[in-house]
Amino acid sequence: MGKPVAYENLRRLCEEILLSENFGIEAAHEIVDVLLEADLRGIPSHGVARLGRYIKERDSGNILLDSKPSIVHDTPVSATVDGNGGPGQCVSNYAMDLAIRKGKESMIGLVSVRNSNHYGISAYYSEKALSKKMIGIAMTNSYPLVVPTFGKEAVLGTNPFSVAIPGLKKNFILDMATSVVTRGKLEVYDRLGRDIPNGWAVDETGRNTTSPRRVLNNFNSRNPGGILPLGGSEEDFGGHKGYGMALLVDLLSAGLSLGRWSAETYSGSQAGVSHFFGCFSLELFGDRSSLIEHLEHIVDGVVSSKKADGHNKIYYHGEKEAMARERAVTSGIDLDQKTRDSLVSLAKKHSLSIPVELLD
Amino acid sequence: MGKPVAYENLRRLCEEILLSENFGIEAAHEIVDVLLEADLRGIPSHGVARLGRYIKERDSGNILLDSKPSIVHDTPVSATVDGNGGPGQCVSNYAMDLAIRKGKESMIGLVSVRNSNHYGISAYYSEKALSKKMIGIAMTNSYPLVVPTFGKEAVLGTNPFSVAIPGLKKNFILDMATSVVTRGKLEVYDRLGRDIPNGWAVDETGRNTTSPRRVLNNFNSRNPGGILPLGGSEEDFGGHKGYGMALLVDLLSAGLSLGRWSAETYSGSQAGVSHFFGCFSLELFGDRSSLIEHLEHIVDGVVSSKKADGHNKIYYHGEKEAMARERAVTSGIDLDQKTRDSLVSLAKKHSLSIPVELLD
Repeated sequence: MGKPVAYENLRRLCEEILLSENFGIEAAHEIVDVLLEADLRGIPSHGVARLGRYIKERDSGNILLDSKPSIVHDTPVSATVDGNGGPGQCVSNYAMDLAIRKGKESMIGLVSVRNSNHYGISAYYSEKALSKKMIGIAMTNSYPLVVPTFGKEAVLGTNPFSVAIPGLKKNFILDMATSVVTRGKLEVYDRLGRDIPNGWAVDETGRNTTSPRRVLNNFNSRNPGGILPLGGSEEDFGGHKGYGMALLVDLLSAGLSLGRWSAETYSGSQAGVSHFFGCFSLELFGDRSSLIEHLEHIVDGVVSSKKADGHNKIYYHGEKEAMARERAVTSGIDLDQKTRDSLVSLAKKHSLSIPVELLD
Repeated sequence: MGKPVAYENLRRLCEEILLSENFGIEAAHEIVDVLLEADLRGIPSHGVARLGRYIKERDSGNILLDSKPSIVHDTPVSATVDGNGGPGQCVSNYAMDLAIRKGKESMIGLVSVRNSNHYGISAYYSEKALSKKMIGIAMTNSYPLVVPTFGKEAVLGTNPFSVAIPGLKKNFILDMATSVVTRGKLEVYDRLGRDIPNGWAVDETGRNTTSPRRVLNNFNSRNPGGILPLGGSEEDFGGHKGYGMALLVDLLSAGLSLGRWSAETYSGSQAGVSHFFGCFSLELFGDRSSLIEHLEHIVDGVVSSKKADGHNKIYYHGEKEAMARERAVTSGIDLDQKTRDSLVSLAKKHSLSIPVELLD
């Protein structure tokens, strides 16, 4: 895998690449900040590995660098934002910051967003509410990869959502795709030549398949088939629940913004991704300090309950990512060879200086 | 199974039973209305089969008939309600109606609730918002039956939540336990002498078990072991996601009301169940009619996508229940023998007239 790359070196290089690609200083900073947060937390699928793809999406006209988001509907506690095709990270920072401003004034802020792009990890935005000791919510629809229960056509995205709830020391930060796995996981199994378990994906007939290659080929040929919702196929393990949550994300993001739902994204001239953001003040329900203490008491109760044989720790949500982040800030960020090669190649293209860790 | 019982006959009998048990006319009406909605929709586990249990809970002091809910914190868009041990249905109607009143005035209403009891099906409350063309939310914690990922102790409830979103004709009504199955499902398999699939439950060591009897025995003996969160054991199928959703329900209901979380319910003198209710006006985000049309367009898009081989229909959430309801309103409600016997016995105890369908 090569040497880990120091956070500051990687940030500098990625920002310089985007600047050289005419992304503008603010967009470069915002995009790289979100991507690096994913790498720091051990979620490389949403990290700087995406940089090349974002540049391609700018080239294809999905990401419009000169456009700014606009507010198309506004109330003291809510808004609908048109991203106007801007970078997902910039549009989403704008929308979540708007929600938080409303939340600070009115205790609640809800913002639906249309015509945006891939925004990175959901937790980046939900967590912004934590610094104000508010509850944060973020969700997005995405490229259609997931089949509804009893269907065989991938019309839903992996449609992730995140809810961040403050504690004394333990912030609960749920960030989950509503599918059983993501496309990246299938690609990993495919590269390793491994079968995927029954219950992850279906083939072009809508039946369970253990071949990741078959699913990926069907995606590439735009055949039916795709990834299953959380809970798997049919209803025995609750696949209809994951399907319901994926559809819920589409209804709240695309539905409430008059935006494109998953099946309509990345078709025609724009990506047209939709998001939904929200924040709530704890003062809606009582004294803030008492509530935070009580929220922590609940999280404490769960993680201190008895462990299954063979396990010595129950994690709360966000804990693994916080631990990975702490390690990576000190010892650097691991990048796979493909990502290293792509960064080096982009650096050379623009004659940028390359961090030594990438040259080993 | 015996003859189906006409809705009106069953309602009259159940209300008379509760009246004879001194529940009071309003409480009797509210409780039976919620329970019968479950039976009508084909969810007998939450139907009038619970009547005997509610009477026992009144006897044991969990359900306090003479208490009324009180508002302990209040803002124009939110409140915290203390149920003071009242029947879950009465407390929840009070709290959801309060949320809707606030929603009508302020476009948003959020209400957290503590010290309540079992409230029946979540969708009953979330749906109340639909008549006002608002989005409704309802969730509750519950008796601890579910183990967190890498744990073996049932500290979380099946913690269901419901979101109801209006459409033109197709109302999306998600109502799901955050566990892979409910206790009732294990009981059915146990009665039939069938093994449960791997991934539904763990034994007292925290390992997967296929024996429903073992899980139920552990519940009865208060041994470790229990039902798995949606996504099953460990993380391969996303069990940590279901665990996160169950914990989220506890944080929003118990956490925001300073109430008891699942592990603390039904211990000591009261049940202490916590709920969370909410409603949102569509006008927060734009013109109501346009949004409703667009929401329906998304649901239409999903259900009209290609079907898996062997299937000819993709359901939207709430559709199966609406279909079952339509049938049951006309042809009566099916009740299992145990429920029939229990109702007949309660009727005889209070010398009430018994519907002929129950005497066959």
